[in-house]
Amino acid sequence: MSEAPASPAPMEGHGSYNRRSHVQAAGIAAAIPLLEESAGLVPLTTAPEPIVIADYGSSEGHNSLAPVSAAISVLRKRTGSNHAISVIHTDLASSDFSVLFQTPDSYLRGDNAVFASAVGRSFYGEILPPGSVTLGWSSWAVQWLSRIPAPIPDQVQIAYSSDPQARAAYADQAAQDWRVFLESRSREMKKGGRLVVLTMARDDVEGFGYRSVVAAAYAALCDMVRDGVIGKAELERMVIPTFGRSRADLLAPFAASGYFAGLAVGHCEIFLAEDHIWSQYEKDRDATAFGARWAAFSRASVAPTLALGLDDKNHTARTALFIDELESRMTAKLAAAPERSAIPLAKLVLEKSAV
Amino acid sequence: MSEAPASPAPMEGHGSYNRRSHVQAAGIAAAIPLLEESAGLVPLTTAPEPIVIADYGSSEGHNSLAPVSAAISVLRKRTGSNHAISVIHTDLASSDFSVLFQTPDSYLRGDNAVFASAVGRSFYGEILPPGSVTLGWSSWAVQWLSRIPAPIPDQVQIAYSSDPQARAAYADQAAQDWRVFLESRSREMKKGGRLVVLTMARDDVEGFGYRSVVAAAYAALCDMVRDGVIGKAELERMVIPTFGRSRADLLAPFAASGYFAGLAVGHCEIFLAEDHIWSQYEKDRDATAFGARWAAFSRASVAPTLALGLDDKNHTARTALFIDELESRMTAKLAAAPERSAIPLAKLVLEKSAV
Repeated sequence: MSEAPASPAPMEGHGSYNRRSHVQAAGIAAAIPLLEESAGLVPLTTAPEPIVIADYGSSEGHNSLAPVSAAISVLRKRTGSNHAISVIHTDLASSDFSVLFQTPDSYLRGDNAVFASAVGRSFYGEILPPGSVTLGWSSWAVQWLSRIPAPIPDQVQIAYSSDPQARAAYADQAAQDWRVFLESRSREMKKGGRLVVLTMARDDVEGFGYRSVVAAAYAALCDMVRDGVIGKAELERMVIPTFGRSRADLLAPFAASGYFAGLAVGHCEIFLAEDHIWSQYEKDRDATAFGARWAAFSRASVAPTLALGLDDKNHTARTALFIDELESRMTAKLAAAPERSAIPLAKLVLEKSAV
Repeated sequence: MSEAPASPAPMEGHGSYNRRSHVQAAGIAAAIPLLEESAGLVPLTTAPEPIVIADYGSSEGHNSLAPVSAAISVLRKRTGSNHAISVIHTDLASSDFSVLFQTPDSYLRGDNAVFASAVGRSFYGEILPPGSVTLGWSSWAVQWLSRIPAPIPDQVQIAYSSDPQARAAYADQAAQDWRVFLESRSREMKKGGRLVVLTMARDDVEGFGYRSVVAAAYAALCDMVRDGVIGKAELERMVIPTFGRSRADLLAPFAASGYFAGLAVGHCEIFLAEDHIWSQYEKDRDATAFGARWAAFSRASVAPTLALGLDDKNHTARTALFIDELESRMTAKLAAAPERSAIPLAKLVLEKSAV
């Protein structure tokens, strides 16, 4: 429905996303071994052709440092210290690439043959030269749909909506986006190249997860309508266009032949990441801190996207007020009844045919 | 002396540099034929290896569109429409790459085999893989020194200073930076690759040029000290670390053998670009508009760099006030005595040895 590219909307302020990415870090640690294994197995280019590592959906780069460093370490054991490694971070054009380039503890230090660059285009399409990528990585990114396919009348997150039309529209978009993502990456990969994907997912038991956090966000927004902070029409436009794909959803393109667009699935696993915010609460029993941590996570990851539903997206003062208000109301609601969140994730390895 | 990388300092606001780059456009048009000629002569990679065009010092990208499009047009006549062309824009990490990636009339439209990326690192060093660049372009960039080598006691622009120590320090830094720039580019270029450079320069007759504009800037700053808008110590720290190299300066590294770092000079020409702001004034005789145009150019190109001399660089309100004040005072001074500016530029072609 919406013409606008869906999200992540531009983050507020420099580095705000970086500072609040603790939730993501847990899942990333679980997927790094797959990237290391892949780095050990992929065919390497012959120098002087650089070995290209592509990081799809890098955001401000902080979450990319550990996996990229890990991959470089493995590659360096296989190739000389002079063999150039080119690391390409991609995200939407609106992303803050300056923060990425200025990140101080970068993998660039101490290795003169590693080169970093950025591409500001949506990964739902080919954005790197064909046959150029040896190793791909994408974390916490492909759950964002390429567009908002429909409004959600009773929610901001489709997983908790009861509207059958909206649910169907999101499922269709998610299926189509996943195929486009795979096709585009396959074109960009070298023969024998590998792509490791970590993404929000749907668990058979826990579903989409984040139950109390999503509930707090939607209830806070409804309260803000009641209190006249935002209008009813504004809430109706607010959507978080992320989608938790099930194992079956992720494997669907491969169902017929075991292959899709020249890719095979080397690994596909749904798992539940630890809720570190809950673990912290179990230790300190500080309900307000618990609420504040989840609210800060939501502020950084989805509040700017929700703010796109405001009447005037460019009214920066009102946007800032909206985001502050949403965060404080979410904090209060979450603090009132702390609950462990399920964090269902999928980790996959996709292998490009070697011939 | 200063540890900070010199400049261009981060531009204010999104796209402000793009909107005020008319002065640069004239010189660029004069150098594009050299780039087209080079694109017709360089040895091309064999597909699928992409042909890499590097744009060194892209700023927000607007000034890069015409030369990059021109180069692609020539290359496309020599190679199939499927042969990937990779365009890499480089600038300091603080540059606004989002504006670059969002530039609407980009060379990406209408050619599915062109791919754009950005590198946020200083070009005084190797920032791309060795032996990767077929065609290089750098316009209005290498006149910015890598650091501020010394304060300038009697000016903000070294060309108009009478201080022998400061003059020597800037000349030394400019000589060293030019060598580092050439060495770094040479390492990044493929055998037979070519690099076209357009830069501010020193003309034997006109010198550095921009006489009345620099005079207006320095006089406005002195008035601002007198009127208590800025402090004396703040003015003493303000410097525009650009350097107009003479033909002899540019050719110095090549003087001994005709070669430097594997590069030969294919073309080196100092020329005077047309002062379009003066031409407009000759037509409309609107002195205020004349002053406002040069002041707006200065605001976009050097005011943020001058503002780094303020006591608290992060005091955004005072910085904004300073920049507004400088612009309005420069407008008044330039309007009082309109004068044609000399705009001395150098255009060069550097060729990497083919063997």
